[in-house]
Amino acid sequence: MSDDHPRPKGSDIAGRKSDHLDIVLATAAADRPERLTTGLEAIRFEHCALPELSLAAIDLSTRFLGRRLKAPLLISSMTGGPERAARINARLAEVAGDLGIALAVGSQRIAIEGRATGGLDRSLRRLAQDVPILANIGAAQLGLGYGTAEAMRAVEMIEADALIVHLNPLQEAVQAGGDTDWQGIFTRIETLARDLAVPLVVKEVGAGISASLARRLVEAGVAAIDVAGAGGTSWAAVEAERADDPLLRRTAMAFADWGIPTARAIAGVRAACPDTTMIGSGGLRSGLDVARAIRLGADLGGQAAATLAAADHSAEAVAAHFAAVIQELRIACFCTGSADLAALRRAPLID
Amino acid sequence: MSDDHPRPKGSDIAGRKSDHLDIVLATAAADRPERLTTGLEAIRFEHCALPELSLAAIDLSTRFLGRRLKAPLLISSMTGGPERAARINARLAEVAGDLGIALAVGSQRIAIEGRATGGLDRSLRRLAQDVPILANIGAAQLGLGYGTAEAMRAVEMIEADALIVHLNPLQEAVQAGGDTDWQGIFTRIETLARDLAVPLVVKEVGAGISASLARRLVEAGVAAIDVAGAGGTSWAAVEAERADDPLLRRTAMAFADWGIPTARAIAGVRAACPDTTMIGSGGLRSGLDVARAIRLGADLGGQAAATLAAADHSAEAVAAHFAAVIQELRIACFCTGSADLAALRRAPLID
Amino acid sequence: MSDDHPRPKGSDIAGRKSDHLDIVLATAAADRPERLTTGLEAIRFEHCALPELSLAAIDLSTRFLGRRLKAPLLISSMTGGPERAARINARLAEVAGDLGIALAVGSQRIAIEGRATGGLDRSLRRLAQDVPILANIGAAQLGLGYGTAEAMRAVEMIEADALIVHLNPLQEAVQAGGDTDWQGIFTRIETLARDLAVPLVVKEVGAGISASLARRLVEAGVAAIDVAGAGGTSWAAVEAERADDPLLRRTAMAFADWGIPTARAIAGVRAACPDTTMIGSGGLRSGLDVARAIRLGADLGGQAAATLAAADHSAEAVAAHFAAVIQELRIACFCTGSADLAALRRAPLID
Amino acid sequence: MSDDHPRPKGSDIAGRKSDHLDIVLATAAADRPERLTTGLEAIRFEHCALPELSLAAIDLSTRFLGRRLKAPLLISSMTGGPERAARINARLAEVAGDLGIALAVGSQRIAIEGRATGGLDRSLRRLAQDVPILANIGAAQLGLGYGTAEAMRAVEMIEADALIVHLNPLQEAVQAGGDTDWQGIFTRIETLARDLAVPLVVKEVGAGISASLARRLVEAGVAAIDVAGAGGTSWAAVEAERADDPLLRRTAMAFADWGIPTARAIAGVRAACPDTTMIGSGGLRSGLDVARAIRLGADLGGQAAATLAAADHSAEAVAAHFAAVIQELRIACFCTGSADLAALRRAPLID
Ligand SMILES: Cc1cc2nc3c(=O)[nH]c(=O)nc-3n(C[C@H](O)[C@H](O)[C@H](O)COP(=O)(O)O)c2cc1C
Ligand SMILES: Cc1cc2nc3c(=O)[nH]c(=O)nc-3n(C[C@H](O)[C@H](O)[C@H](O)COP(=O)(O)O)c2cc1C
Ligand SMILES: Cc1cc2nc3c(=O)[nH]c(=O)nc-3n(C[C@H](O)[C@H](O)[C@H](O)COP(=O)(O)O)c2cc1C
Ligand SMILES: Cc1cc2nc3c(=O)[nH]c(=O)nc-3n(C[C@H](O)[C@H](O)[C@H](O)COP(=O)(O)O)c2cc1C
Repeated sequence: MSDDHPRPKGSDIAGRKSDHLDIVLATAAADRPERLTTGLEAIRFEHCALPELSLAAIDLSTRFLGRRLKAPLLISSMTGGPERAARINARLAEVAGDLGIALAVGSQRIAIEGRATGGLDRSLRRLAQDVPILANIGAAQLGLGYGTAEAMRAVEMIEADALIVHLNPLQEAVQAGGDTDWQGIFTRIETLARDLAVPLVVKEVGAGISASLARRLVEAGVAAIDVAGAGGTSWAAVEAERADDPLLRRTAMAFADWGIPTARAIAGVRAACPDTTMIGSGGLRSGLDVARAIRLGADLGGQAAATLAAADHSAEAVAAHFAAVIQELRIACFCTGSADLAALRRAPLID
Repeated sequence: MSDDHPRPKGSDIAGRKSDHLDIVLATAAADRPERLTTGLEAIRFEHCALPELSLAAIDLSTRFLGRRLKAPLLISSMTGGPERAARINARLAEVAGDLGIALAVGSQRIAIEGRATGGLDRSLRRLAQDVPILANIGAAQLGLGYGTAEAMRAVEMIEADALIVHLNPLQEAVQAGGDTDWQGIFTRIETLARDLAVPLVVKEVGAGISASLARRLVEAGVAAIDVAGAGGTSWAAVEAERADDPLLRRTAMAFADWGIPTARAIAGVRAACPDTTMIGSGGLRSGLDVARAIRLGADLGGQAAATLAAADHSAEAVAAHFAAVIQELRIACFCTGSADLAALRRAPLID
Repeated sequence: MSDDHPRPKGSDIAGRKSDHLDIVLATAAADRPERLTTGLEAIRFEHCALPELSLAAIDLSTRFLGRRLKAPLLISSMTGGPERAARINARLAEVAGDLGIALAVGSQRIAIEGRATGGLDRSLRRLAQDVPILANIGAAQLGLGYGTAEAMRAVEMIEADALIVHLNPLQEAVQAGGDTDWQGIFTRIETLARDLAVPLVVKEVGAGISASLARRLVEAGVAAIDVAGAGGTSWAAVEAERADDPLLRRTAMAFADWGIPTARAIAGVRAACPDTTMIGSGGLRSGLDVARAIRLGADLGGQAAATLAAADHSAEAVAAHFAAVIQELRIACFCTGSADLAALRRAPLID
Repeated sequence: MSDDHPRPKGSDIAGRKSDHLDIVLATAAADRPERLTTGLEAIRFEHCALPELSLAAIDLSTRFLGRRLKAPLLISSMTGGPERAARINARLAEVAGDLGIALAVGSQRIAIEGRATGGLDRSLRRLAQDVPILANIGAAQLGLGYGTAEAMRAVEMIEADALIVHLNPLQEAVQAGGDTDWQGIFTRIETLARDLAVPLVVKEVGAGISASLARRLVEAGVAAIDVAGAGGTSWAAVEAERADDPLLRRTAMAFADWGIPTARAIAGVRAACPDTTMIGSGGLRSGLDVARAIRLGADLGGQAAATLAAADHSAEAVAAHFAAVIQELRIACFCTGSADLAALRRAPLID
């Protein structure tokens, strides 16, 4: 910046300035900070070396949407293109029914618009007769004109016990052509909560729901919250991967670690809404993570991405996956001396 | 999740959704958090640059189970299959006798059931005449019907000074076919403590004993606690390594870092049970770690895994290993200006 | 250090001492600590999953130096050798005018001394008619005799709205032949602030301005502060790269992480000078970083190095770069539910 | 540990137990914790962007042992085997004299015993006429019978201004055949402090001097303390490198990170002994580290290992090295706006 005082090796100012440019250009490496985590990994249970329990007799059952679950688990909403989706949905429904856990389907927009069902029809309920099934539409659709009628169509199409509205403003914002006019959507959710024949659940898709928003939603009549916090699937990172335009990719990547980490979202929502049914989700990998989510205040743990490989493979793989998740949750109860989920919620932590 | 608004490059929704699936599948890398440590590495002694001591004259002697030890060390319980075990036990006993340190044998279940002794007979006592020898059975065996008679058989078989009951609920839970009905075991330990002719010691195997459990055990008549905390040998990781079934392996790995870190377990148990004999163990690598365990409140330091390579080799290797551990402990005393273990317990730390 | 007591393997003292020398020499690796960061990465916004806004309608406009900006952005000063500079300046001016953001030119010393303009003439203003343009001279020049006349020449030459004086004591100190007599410069800045026909802005170049200096400058009549904090371009590292002499390089590298990190500089200056216009700059990579700077108290965000690759390429690349930055800032507003910059300043953070 | 319940794949207990042994043996990797640092790297000065100083006019002079230094630097004691030592000592003395900084010679034991001078004779004083020269003997020698007579011989041999006694209990303890009977040494230091004709300085060699020991030494009549803290040269690591016996090496490595980090030692000693002359040393790499040491309370900064490469090369290399150190210290003063060392001691830090 200051210039041309005598310089040892015959270099002139112009050369020096141009050097500056080149060195800065060469060293402008994007330093990506540490990948964001869910915060669940920091929740450590105090080990109970002498449980006075039988592992097999630990009671993981709970109630959700008026039905009994054998374990506090929700298979979180996933869409995946019509053909693959049909097979995946059938597998998930079969296993949900067999294991007695809840199932949420992916966005039903295409099915509602009558273009393809992707398996989102009454066959699902036949596969999973006694467990809660949750329908799913996007908040952006509410903004684009969907109302109670379309919502009920989604519910009835699969004989669902409840409807999920998913909130995904970041995903819409970082993709080309996303729906980013969200004015009036809150009011529409309020209306839906009042008019819909089944309970309304609101979820995020991986950036988390804050304590203050959860409270407003509950006051508006929403029956349950699924936090879907940050630290697991990052839709900004996924959209970055898909983007062709390098600048769009960069923009998406700038938000790869955006969001409220799952552990914090769960604890925040529980503190703000002590009596609301809450699903803890976003980056849960194992039954131990489910145990941690429950310890922090969740009623159920939800999983999407971690089940995907199995769902893409076979019903047997999905069954084996969730059997392992349930066994892990059971071991977490055993090794904290917790006979049931109520006891797990009081299990001592190591700070 | 929201769908089919006009998109720049002719991609359709179905393709987009399928992209999502594939990208999430490809990036689902299991992010293993930092390996858990014992916490001992964070205990730093304040250096004393002018000790006013002779290193050779530092007094490391202590008493344990009515006998004198030349150094506050316990060779922790290890089993290893009959043939190898016999050789290993003989080597350990010889060195324990020579160096004046305590010896705990591995689980005596097979020997009690009369199927093979693995060297667990009176020959051990002949090799280690003046030092404490500790017998060992598993809590799971108590659950499966062992009582005072079997326990005394374990003690007498090797002329032991005390009996260890080991607690390993996590190890049982993560292996195929483990014993996981632990109902009633606490009461059986209580009975044993009352009826047994020798003192009863309770230990974990690498997940730690909590302060509250230690207190309950002491109130039940247990004479000494060996914390065997987390940060060293992880039995979940070992069982994961052995598992053939990938899901069993995954379940075991989910608990690889479970447990109360050794440093915390020692401090917790000492605070809860100020007058109980306590062995600090779990991941102790060197005599400096033994010094740290003692500084935190342990009476003795125990080592299993770190002695194994030497034990698998020769008595000379075991002797050299423990000579080094003792020298390291001595240097820790020297460089903190501690003339004996009582002084070491008061040595200033750097925070 | 102590010597020649009997040693096991026949080694003599002389040999031992020489060993010491060689081992120490071999292990003298320079351990560079973790690269300093701006601190902005630690500022995490609480996600708002239900914004009640239209992304496109978010109002990013602000006023600066009496003109309206469409977004709170300043292209920070860069010089780069006459030929390249001319092209770069023209591109930056064109884009600043088109996008409605502010432009600061690089040091005008060479142009003032009449040796080459590097495009620093009235053509700039024609390219960027309605946006603030800032002239630039170095504090070291004030020390070497520049006064109000030269300063006004810099301003008039490009029809600037304000004059920046840049402070770069570290850069001067770590380069061969830098200007390091800074006595009296504060007084000269004070005089300039009083006598100059346009507002005076003071900036650093990547080491930050402290709260106490900012307050003194404001009391001396300076109209705005650009913190240009540490964590982005490190001039010490750049000069190290350029240095031929290894010791000069070492000296420069010793200061590679010197400076007040940008986040801290912004917060400090805002606390000390609540009502002063402040540009937050130094290592801002994306519009999300601009949002963080504004949340911490900046009125505008400035960028130099991150724009350089585009500036070296074409006006289109610069336009695309800043369009992305603006979109990122807009998304940060959207996903915090902030309708404008005033709302962004109150957006809740995650601690 | 529990045994032989039915197991899936026909494996028997013996096999399982032997598996355990092998897996534990294979995974017993020594996890070396993060390398200890001096703590100086965490001391960050607040940048002063407008110094109002001339770099060249900054006054680095100070007084030490009744003589004037042009910069607050001590070349710390180093021995290195007779032939190399002679050349090294001459080079260091020449540069110390030329630059006006203090010189401490390495251990004079061999020279005192008349076996070889290693250049430790009156030629040193001729090369460095006006600067403080410090003689050096080891505390262990005091333990082995050295008294005031031998100490004065060390002083007179090189016309020293003071005598250093170095404390190195750890180094003695981790080497084969080290002197580890340190009983009575404190009293001998006390006597020496009283009887010696020149001031007595006490130093460590890389493990630090604690606040409490410093106070006792000062009360015993010691004139100055050189902390020589941990984070730089680790003698345990050096001795580990030299050890032939793997267990001796292991023992030495267990103490590689032992000691009071330099930053903490300096601050501790200064708090305990507000008026005592103190040399801050141990791992100082640059003049910036010297500035940090002074900011924490040291009067001088000392360097051994960092000067060694230059000392092993030529007087010119040593001169260039210390010129750079002095320039770095000067830049630290400049960029904190400190006109002299007293000002540097009050320079604001960033926390
Ligand atoms: C392939 C895929 C498709 C998804 N599709 C939907 C969807 O249609 N509707 C929805 O509410 N969430 C959808 N999600 C979000 C998930 O329901 C979940 O909230 C999010 O991925 C975080 O959980 P996870 O970390 O367990 O994946 C999808 C997730 C994945 C991985
Ligand atoms: C190969 C091996 C076998 C073991 N067998 C037993 C056993 O039979 N009974 C028992 O109480 N503990 C057993 N343990 C556990 C140890 O006694 C000890 O508590 C645990 O390994 C933690 O200490 P470490 O980190 O020093 O290995 C065994 C450990 C190892 C490594
Ligand atoms: C190539 C280059 C040239 C620069 N030239 C100047 C200059 O002439 N005058 C000035 O005040 N700052 C100059 N700077 C400093 C920048 O204005 C800015 O304060 C600094 O680089 C920190 O911001 P950044 O991290 O966004 O690059 C220059 C920076 C770069 C990268
Ligand atoms: C090769 C070498 C030889 C040393 N010899 C001595 C010695 O004879 N006497 C002494 O007091 N210290 C000796 N030291 C220790 C240094 O004086 C200094 O206290 C220690 O190395 C820490 O400083 P540093 O990190 O700058 O090396 C020696 C150090 C080195 C590197």
